[in-house]
Amino acid sequence: MAKNITGNNQYLKEFNQAVVLDLIRQHKRLSRKELSVLTGLSPTACGSITRTLIKDGFLYETGQGESTGGRKPVMLELKPGSYYAVGFDIGMNELKMVIADITSEILVQRELKYSQGISTEKVIDIIQEEFFKTIETEKLSHEKFLGCGLSIPGILDRETNKIIMAPNLSWSEVNLGSRIREVLDMPIYIENEAMCSAICEHWIGECSNISNFVCINVESGIGAGIFIKESIYRGHSGSAGEIGHLIVNENGRLCGCGSKGCLETYASTRYMLTEISEKIKSGYSSDKIVQSMGTLTWDMIVNAAFKGDELCVKVLERGAVFLGFAVAYLINTLNPEAIVLGKSFTSYAPLVMDLLTKTVKERALAYPASRVKILTSNFGMSSSALGAAMIPIRKVFGK
Amino acid sequence: MAKNITGNNQYLKEFNQAVVLDLIRQHKRLSRKELSVLTGLSPTACGSITRTLIKDGFLYETGQGESTGGRKPVMLELKPGSYYAVGFDIGMNELKMVIADITSEILVQRELKYSQGISTEKVIDIIQEEFFKTIETEKLSHEKFLGCGLSIPGILDRETNKIIMAPNLSWSEVNLGSRIREVLDMPIYIENEAMCSAICEHWIGECSNISNFVCINVESGIGAGIFIKESIYRGHSGSAGEIGHLIVNENGRLCGCGSKGCLETYASTRYMLTEISEKIKSGYSSDKIVQSMGTLTWDMIVNAAFKGDELCVKVLERGAVFLGFAVAYLINTLNPEAIVLGKSFTSYAPLVMDLLTKTVKERALAYPASRVKILTSNFGMSSSALGAAMIPIRKVFGK
Repeated sequence: MAKNITGNNQYLKEFNQAVVLDLIRQHKRLSRKELSVLTGLSPTACGSITRTLIKDGFLYETGQGESTGGRKPVMLELKPGSYYAVGFDIGMNELKMVIADITSEILVQRELKYSQGISTEKVIDIIQEEFFKTIETEKLSHEKFLGCGLSIPGILDRETNKIIMAPNLSWSEVNLGSRIREVLDMPIYIENEAMCSAICEHWIGECSNISNFVCINVESGIGAGIFIKESIYRGHSGSAGEIGHLIVNENGRLCGCGSKGCLETYASTRYMLTEISEKIKSGYSSDKIVQSMGTLTWDMIVNAAFKGDELCVKVLERGAVFLGFAVAYLINTLNPEAIVLGKSFTSYAPLVMDLLTKTVKERALAYPASRVKILTSNFGMSSSALGAAMIPIRKVFGK
Repeated sequence: MAKNITGNNQYLKEFNQAVVLDLIRQHKRLSRKELSVLTGLSPTACGSITRTLIKDGFLYETGQGESTGGRKPVMLELKPGSYYAVGFDIGMNELKMVIADITSEILVQRELKYSQGISTEKVIDIIQEEFFKTIETEKLSHEKFLGCGLSIPGILDRETNKIIMAPNLSWSEVNLGSRIREVLDMPIYIENEAMCSAICEHWIGECSNISNFVCINVESGIGAGIFIKESIYRGHSGSAGEIGHLIVNENGRLCGCGSKGCLETYASTRYMLTEISEKIKSGYSSDKIVQSMGTLTWDMIVNAAFKGDELCVKVLERGAVFLGFAVAYLINTLNPEAIVLGKSFTSYAPLVMDLLTKTVKERALAYPASRVKILTSNFGMSSSALGAAMIPIRKVFGK
């Protein structure tokens, strides 16, 4: 697995360090001898690598392990609170911030609501203010930050750190990555919002041992993060996972993408909220929704649905059936081991999950359908912010 | 790229031989010195490897190359006619056979028609008879065959060489691989029919330098072979690529899979043929089809459509629109660099290709749609048989 170092090869040195760290991460704690066996590196090489990693603060000695005959070995673990990363999920109505350390321990989770349609300038200001205020309060050293991950609901050019388009934020051609790099003074990684959730599920969630899986996020839009053969799949030009534009009704509602009858126009929170609001405005009686004088919110709709409101349940259920069509087609096409449904879907999953799995059973081929796990994310609305924070951390482990 | 041999390591030896052969395949001809530079192996190691490969008949010396100062170097090429592979495409109505050599030169192409619904026993008999008759006629030595690839329209268990289900052949749970291995006495590789076409496009076709692409075969069913990151993608349990069950009409025709309104029920040759036959039986006037006393065939329909037959054109066009929906969704979801439409589609592609690409433009996101090539296969009905023959050949090159 690791490669024996010959000469002063910086690449190999970093590669071997990452392998050692990742083994310790996976096993929680290992002795130098165990590391030597697992990596195939000599005890001398392992000693040298772990010495560097202890000196640099990535590892620490945590007392003695079990003896296998002879002296009890000193065990090594990842050092909590030694290095950090910050992740931001930039949504339509709020910004989420997560700070984690290299053990993936979550140190800070914040959310800041804002009005719809925030400008890039405003987001940069909020990120700067919130980050520096937080690290001061929490007494986290700025220089210990490995980097910042940004979760964006859109299509990105990751080489230039540029947002090509984020329709739900009304942003296009924005150089957000380089702007935030200046402000936060650390490496910045921009990533699609659904892919951030997939990273989260792969690093600390249900999919840590799964090679091929798809994370579907239901939000203002519907997108997917796809892992294939243990790694992120982005496609030819970085836009893979735009599953929200499955045509579920050939002559249906006009979608923002220019097509008609897309999944998003029936199953995204934005369209479901609009449909219910319009029905109520036009006189539909929906007594389980508190008929406030203000505007309906998504939370109000979910609450009303849990109380049995007929209109809300109907709209959520139709969305779930169409989402089931997309899940079935992904199962047929990609034959994944797991599909994780996340973000806003988790808020009403108990109401529609049976209907969705029934739909999948009816609509997907039996063979791949009987070999896939369909899961609801355990991270609720936080998966993308968590995944964004994990991006710089994964780099330490060579991922 | 290659690995320096230390000790008597059979794996490394074979790995290095494959690397050398693949470099020569890609460059057509190379000198030993060029091989040494490209592989990073010492001239001595390169000399040893090429000596073995010449002795075993994979390479031969083809005269002198250009001098770069000093003696003109001796050039090495793959040796034509030295080793062979055979591929069979087992279709609903015919068996295709291809024999090729390691230079991918096609030596034999045969097809044998049979009546619909052939048994496995019959197929094994035909394969045995046809293969041995052919190698006798063509004077090909049996012992020079590297193996046999079998293209099957179904879901396979490649580890056991077993066909799990091939609905259009009405086969399930058949141990075809091991049976044919006994009969032909060579290694057997079974592979999905659409994946065979994808292998063909990747090895000798339009996709030889493309990392991420999808080959769609329109036949009795509609399936896809997916390449991701330069390699075959099969999914968690080997059934990826079943794209024929996209729901294009929520309450449409019942499909063999149990779902309703699947793409296959509108755009596969079988359903299109059935629809046209039934319309004509029920009195629809379709004057450009020769109203023979016998049963309509697919070829008759394609001919009639080229002559402008209204019914045939209408059915082919509707199939193409729905196929366009599937292509659009694959573009959105997988963001491939190319999509190749093949097999029966190639017979009527000129009639519908404009409509299909127009549909894709309307229905896919502009960003990935503007970055994909939509192609018609150049191999017509032969792509799966060709791809099947390439499977044992690819192994020589470490693929």
